[in-house]
Amino acid sequence: MLENTGRTELSSLGEFGLIKHLTRFIEIKNESTIKGVGDDAAVIDFKNKLTVVSTDMLVEGVHFDLMYVPLKHLGYKAVTVNLSDIYAMNATPRQITVSFAVSNRFSVEAVEELYAGIITACNKYKVDLVGGDTTTSKSGLVISITAIGEAAAEDLIYRDGAKDGDLLCVTGDLGAAYIGLQLLEREKKIFLENPGVQPDLDGHDYILQRQLKPEARKDIPVLLKKLEVKPTAMIDISDGLASEILHLCTQSEVGCNLYEDKIPIDPSAYNMTREFNLDPTVCALSGGEDYELLFTIDQSDYPKVKANPDITVIGHMTHKKEGMNLITKAGTTYPLTAQGWDSLLNKIA
Amino acid sequence: MLENTGRTELSSLGEFGLIKHLTRFIEIKNESTIKGVGDDAAVIDFKNKLTVVSTDMLVEGVHFDLMYVPLKHLGYKAVTVNLSDIYAMNATPRQITVSFAVSNRFSVEAVEELYAGIITACNKYKVDLVGGDTTTSKSGLVISITAIGEAAAEDLIYRDGAKDGDLLCVTGDLGAAYIGLQLLEREKKIFLENPGVQPDLDGHDYILQRQLKPEARKDIPVLLKKLEVKPTAMIDISDGLASEILHLCTQSEVGCNLYEDKIPIDPSAYNMTREFNLDPTVCALSGGEDYELLFTIDQSDYPKVKANPDITVIGHMTHKKEGMNLITKAGTTYPLTAQGWDSLLNKIA
Repeated sequence: MLENTGRTELSSLGEFGLIKHLTRFIEIKNESTIKGVGDDAAVIDFKNKLTVVSTDMLVEGVHFDLMYVPLKHLGYKAVTVNLSDIYAMNATPRQITVSFAVSNRFSVEAVEELYAGIITACNKYKVDLVGGDTTTSKSGLVISITAIGEAAAEDLIYRDGAKDGDLLCVTGDLGAAYIGLQLLEREKKIFLENPGVQPDLDGHDYILQRQLKPEARKDIPVLLKKLEVKPTAMIDISDGLASEILHLCTQSEVGCNLYEDKIPIDPSAYNMTREFNLDPTVCALSGGEDYELLFTIDQSDYPKVKANPDITVIGHMTHKKEGMNLITKAGTTYPLTAQGWDSLLNKIA
Repeated sequence: MLENTGRTELSSLGEFGLIKHLTRFIEIKNESTIKGVGDDAAVIDFKNKLTVVSTDMLVEGVHFDLMYVPLKHLGYKAVTVNLSDIYAMNATPRQITVSFAVSNRFSVEAVEELYAGIITACNKYKVDLVGGDTTTSKSGLVISITAIGEAAAEDLIYRDGAKDGDLLCVTGDLGAAYIGLQLLEREKKIFLENPGVQPDLDGHDYILQRQLKPEARKDIPVLLKKLEVKPTAMIDISDGLASEILHLCTQSEVGCNLYEDKIPIDPSAYNMTREFNLDPTVCALSGGEDYELLFTIDQSDYPKVKANPDITVIGHMTHKKEGMNLITKAGTTYPLTAQGWDSLLNKIA
């Protein structure tokens, strides 16, 4: 994948040459961006709004496998997972900084691919790339992105505002990114055992796209405003539904009843879980990387969201002493605890 | 160094446990910090000031060697090198985010040491740690820090404002961090060849401190205000004097005459360069990691800075067509070019 007809060594450009080369087409899209790449720091003017900042690090061999992740997709995903955190605050991302460490096994062309994905995401989400750092590494690729956004104080939504009786809602569907990863891992294994066999990925566009090129839900803050619903708490789903519910409950000091039969799962993902002998609910609960938004709303807002195809009510918040529970399709109640997902998942799988 | 009487495995805490453990003593120091660690993003309120953002990545084996860099010092340095960029904008740092990737060879105690250094720097520079990401790596340690500051629009100093005739000034002294590194490398080599021999670092406190625990010049923006001097351009010295002069000249579209005999070098660093058969000027020009500030001022401001012990005038800016030149102690003029430092340095060394 890193081979190219024309391979240019990173050392031929040097750090400053590489930065200049990669950033040559950057155009500023936001009024708030006063100074972008090229000085000791970027300068941003949010006037009377608040600044919102989030950061994520992606490490080769931990968060991605370059055997099946194209570098352009990786760059794109590295940006969207960061922007997802900003949307989860009900804020608007405006700028990002991008740092990466690459070893000599990457050519300039490879880094260009990575950067092309980053720029594509910046264009789609209308954020400005305003700074970063480029360095060598002794082994793998590491990408660290910081996203900066803005919000009016009254629009911000934290994790700690959910209250007993609130409805628990989720956008889109869950588990597909995880099952997409299982498919890629299976085809990688087959390929390694039989290098002549081409990967069989046909007809799995949706789950592959969810894994390789996830989108951040920039439409949801807009939709919520249109529906005149302000969630009481919100978080994005990066580690899996169960883990995010835990964060909301812990920080809001409430309990939760989650209904298994309400969890939205795409039919193509559902079918593939069966092919892999996995439980679709387990994939949704623990799979992660869906980058959907999970939020709680006051019961009185239910009529405003109930007919919306982008929002599913999957449970409700309870008193803290009732704990976090999963109500299965069979009507059984299992406690969702911080530790021991595995044993729980074995039970329902 | 990573061994400890009580070693706790990272896996025993998990990511969220580790973050909670490390951030338990964080106290918010700035009014502008509305929300710190613990949500999808941090929230900052700079009211009518501008936001300034800078980011740096440090990679094991590239930027530091854990054989002689204590983790606490590493954490401290990772923060100060970022803050240095904010001061170089004549801005005040207020918040940082810290991401790091660590492998299993690090214990919880080792990560605590790293974090202790980060917190010590935060306390000293009165910045709030407001977010970050903690992940595993397959091999080395990678630290990525983003610093966020504030400034009134009229106070900001960019790299592109230097003009023909301006005086070139530098704070503190140069080259000591580089010669400190040479000393550490020498003692490491001796130790590897003869593990029984203890490193001989006595009497070299200054150069070692400059390398292992550099400070950012937070006093300089204050001093400049007191002196009623606003530099026309400013940059911090991370890559070496020559490289930073190049940035100022390129972005300001001017030339420069730098006088070798004016470059401030600490006597202890000077003596050590001789012990290593290195040229002190070469160390100052190319050594880097001094984290002093390099700036240009209008000639009319000369009386305000000339008697100040923290500021040295080392040259002046010229018309772009005259290029960048080093005037040696012998009175010879050598062009300072973007490429080919090595050949130049061989000439003057």
